Amino acid sequence: MALTHDQTVITNGVNVTELSETIEAIRRRPELGAFQFRAKNNWLDGGHNRSTIRGFSGCGMEDDTRAEPFVFDADEPPMLHGGDKGANPVEFVLHALAACMTTTMVYHAAARGIEIEAVSSELEGDLDMRGFMGLSDDVRKGYHDVRVKMRVKSNANPDQLAELATYSPVYDIVSNSLPVHVLIETF
Amino acid sequence: MALTHDQTVITNGVNVTELSETIEAIRRRPELGAFQFRAKNNWLDGGHNRSTIRGFSGCGMEDDTRAEPFVFDADEPPMLHGGDKGANPVEFVLHALAACMTTTMVYHAAARGIEIEAVSSELEGDLDMRGFMGLSDDVRKGYHDVRVKMRVKSNANPDQLAELATYSPVYDIVSNSLPVHVLIETF
Repeated sequence: MALTHDQTVITNGVNVTELSETIEAIRRRPELGAFQFRAKNNWLDGGHNRSTIRGFSGCGMEDDTRAEPFVFDADEPPMLHGGDKGANPVEFVLHALAACMTTTMVYHAAARGIEIEAVSSELEGDLDMRGFMGLSDDVRKGYHDVRVKMRVKSNANPDQLAELATYSPVYDIVSNSLPVHVLIETF
Repeated sequence: MALTHDQTVITNGVNVTELSETIEAIRRRPELGAFQFRAKNNWLDGGHNRSTIRGFSGCGMEDDTRAEPFVFDADEPPMLHGGDKGANPVEFVLHALAACMTTTMVYHAAARGIEIEAVSSELEGDLDMRGFMGLSDDVRKGYHDVRVKMRVKSNANPDQLAELATYSPVYDIVSNSLPVHVLIETF
C-alpha cells in the first residue's frame, strides 16, 4: 500500500483518498460539516414498534442515494411483557455504541496509516429496573454503567486504539449529556 | 375493559396484570430489578460491522427464551465513504430513542389505565462532523441537539404523556451522562 500519483489508497477497507478529500473540504468550509440524521417510528402494539430510516443531510446536500429505507422492529422480551419481535431499545443502544466505536477506530486508524486486521467487541450495560418503574427516585432510569471490551488485531498499542475509538459520536452521546427536546401533540 | 377477579387486564396491548405483578415483585425484592443487557459486534470491512444480541439477565435469572440472536448490520452511506449495508450508528441511536420513548409511554399509560390508540414519531439529530474529524476542539463529536416530535391518539393531555414518555431509559441514557468503561486488548 503506497500513496502515489493517480492511485487511490485503501486502508482497513476505507478509501483514505476520498476520506481525506472530505475532511479537507469541511476544513475549508465548516458549514459542510453540518449533518442531520432522522428516524420515523410507528407504534404497533404493546412493546412492539417499528422505525424507518432513510433520508439525511450533510456536506451541504440532501442525500438521495437510498432507494429503500432501513426498517427496524423493537420489542420487549417476555420477561418484560413483550412479544420479543425485535431487540429492545436499550439493546439497540449497545449495538449503536459497538458499531460506532468500531467504525471510528477503523476510520481514524486508516487516516493515520494504521492497519487493523480484525475487531470484535463485547458490551454489557447494567440497568436497575426500579428507575423505569418509578419505584425509587434515587435510581436512574437508564444504564448506570456500560462496559466495552474490544479485541483488536493490530500492531498499534491499546492506548492509541482507545484514543481513536473514543472519537466515536455514539460514545460521546452515551457518555455525555445532550439536550433532547420533546414535543407531544395529541389528536 | 374492567378489572375483575380471574380476569386479565390488557391495556394498549400490555398485560397490565402481569406487569403489576412484576412491579410488585421488584418493589418487595429490589435485587430483582438488576438487569444486564449485552451485545457482541464483529467488524467486517471499512464502515461495515455486525452486532448479535441474544442473552440478558433480569428478575434474578438468565433469560433463555430467545432461540436465535437478533442480528444488525451497521455501515456508513456513500457520503461518509461506506457501502450503506445498514443504517449508521447515530441513526440507530435515533431508532433506540424513538422505540424506547414510545414503549415507555405505552407501558406507563397502561399501568395508569390511560388508553392510547396510536403513536407516531419523527426524530432529528444534528451533528457537526468537524468533531468526529478532529477539526475543532470546540465541536463535540456526537449530536449537539436532538428533537423528538410525537403524535399520540389519546384522551390524555400532552403534558401528562410527555411525563410518561420521559421515564424512558434511552431518553435518560442520551440526555444525561453515563460512565462508559473502555478496555482494549490487542493480539
